Amino acid sequence: MQKFNRNQRITAITKILIENPNKVINLNKFTELFNAAKSTISEDIVVVRETLHRLSMGNIETISGAAGGIKYICGTSEENTNKFAEELCIILQDKQRIVPGEFMYISDIMFNPQIVQKAAVVLASKFIKEQIDYVVTIETKGIPLAYEVAKMLGVNLVIVRRDSKVTEGPTVSINYISGSSRRIQTMSLSKKSINKGSKCIFIDDFMKAGGTALGIINLLKEFESELIGIGVLIDNINTSKKLVHEYFSIIKFSGIDENDNPILQPDKILKK
Amino acid sequence: MQKFNRNQRITAITKILIENPNKVINLNKFTELFNAAKSTISEDIVVVRETLHRLSMGNIETISGAAGGIKYICGTSEENTNKFAEELCIILQDKQRIVPGEFMYISDIMFNPQIVQKAAVVLASKFIKEQIDYVVTIETKGIPLAYEVAKMLGVNLVIVRRDSKVTEGPTVSINYISGSSRRIQTMSLSKKSINKGSKCIFIDDFMKAGGTALGIINLLKEFESELIGIGVLIDNINTSKKLVHEYFSIIKFSGIDENDNPILQPDKILKK
Repeated sequence: MQKFNRNQRITAITKILIENPNKVINLNKFTELFNAAKSTISEDIVVVRETLHRLSMGNIETISGAAGGIKYICGTSEENTNKFAEELCIILQDKQRIVPGEFMYISDIMFNPQIVQKAAVVLASKFIKEQIDYVVTIETKGIPLAYEVAKMLGVNLVIVRRDSKVTEGPTVSINYISGSSRRIQTMSLSKKSINKGSKCIFIDDFMKAGGTALGIINLLKEFESELIGIGVLIDNINTSKKLVHEYFSIIKFSGIDENDNPILQPDKILKK
Repeated sequence: MQKFNRNQRITAITKILIENPNKVINLNKFTELFNAAKSTISEDIVVVRETLHRLSMGNIETISGAAGGIKYICGTSEENTNKFAEELCIILQDKQRIVPGEFMYISDIMFNPQIVQKAAVVLASKFIKEQIDYVVTIETKGIPLAYEVAKMLGVNLVIVRRDSKVTEGPTVSINYISGSSRRIQTMSLSKKSINKGSKCIFIDDFMKAGGTALGIINLLKEFESELIGIGVLIDNINTSKKLVHEYFSIIKFSGIDENDNPILQPDKILKK
């Protein structure tokens, strides 16, 4: 078998790590792939780690022990995060986005992989130090964002449904009150989808009063599981009372100005 | 500004390319980031291209002209594709997945980022040579897969809804007949979501008779747009008549054997 030189090994190691965020990869995978010594691979990894660090592109952690190896941790700089949030505000500050009822059309944003990926790195970074079993979301618009966050955290996504489906087997349903419209709504989840005693985070596109987040907390209790964090892309702060208090958001939405344009600004929490 | 050496540049170039599939990146981005000459960057790219090619991990294409640059094209080998499809069949061949009505529980598969990513590379590779404007899917289970395919193809995702939502603005709805259950169902899509004259592909988790795919074709006609391809993870061939005939699938599902286990096999189309 032909050998690979350092440049070639670094290309492949970088690709494999980036495609498997927060997953431990044993060094044997690389020694076999490249027919190279462990010490050689370790030197390659030092280069990758230092470069990612220098460019604020994430980190490589070493896990020792028999099941050990290395894992890629997503990350970005405060500067890039603020730049991203500011650019997103400019895209969203468009009166044509306002639909009757003071709602904002954001599907193009939520379904744009370039934007979703950047938002997911910001939100995933907030939870990367926690031991999380699942990222939970509710259909439909937040699914791509929640999926990317789940990928960055190396866990499975769980999608709560508005109604139960024949393909899901037995489901658990709860009723909850939407905090803003005060209407009773239903959410349901397949019994197979979450193991007992799991720790979850909830990711969504938009938070108004937080009734949905509160519903998720109660639904997870039915699975003897716990919600340990909440992250949303846009937080509507133009609401009288929030039903949940601890959450991360990237952008604050505070209603519509005299010219019918949405008022948006990057969340200060990002600067912490 | 400190210079970057070749190893460091290659790490960062690989990461940036992998995170922006099918998007043209101008070489100036790299010359500025690394404070390096264009000729130096071109040599770096040769290394990345050759390595990806040698390991069947995709390709780097050069686009000439003023708006030119390089782009990463996802790809995998026939061997890896078949291995992936076979492993997936083993995971799915479990009688506990069968829910009443001969449905199969596959949410854990469709919401597992590691599996979704691999399936998306297989499906995206089938359409990478076409000029596509959107990847279309219908809520809910196929969304992560369709999102990953959209990312690989460098385009936006479009999610067709089962009912119209207040946040979507004006929508177009059509009725269609589910090919397997013969029930009339509705699908709707925001008028803002697709530009006239677009070329789309439809990606979904599961195809039975193909009634949904046919509905999507008709819905896109309302947007003066065209469906030019279909890709699904699992194709149920245990159905009397298919309503669509040209599509790609990764796995064939042909019903349940005498022990109540699902019968699955990799699609032969993958070997073409």
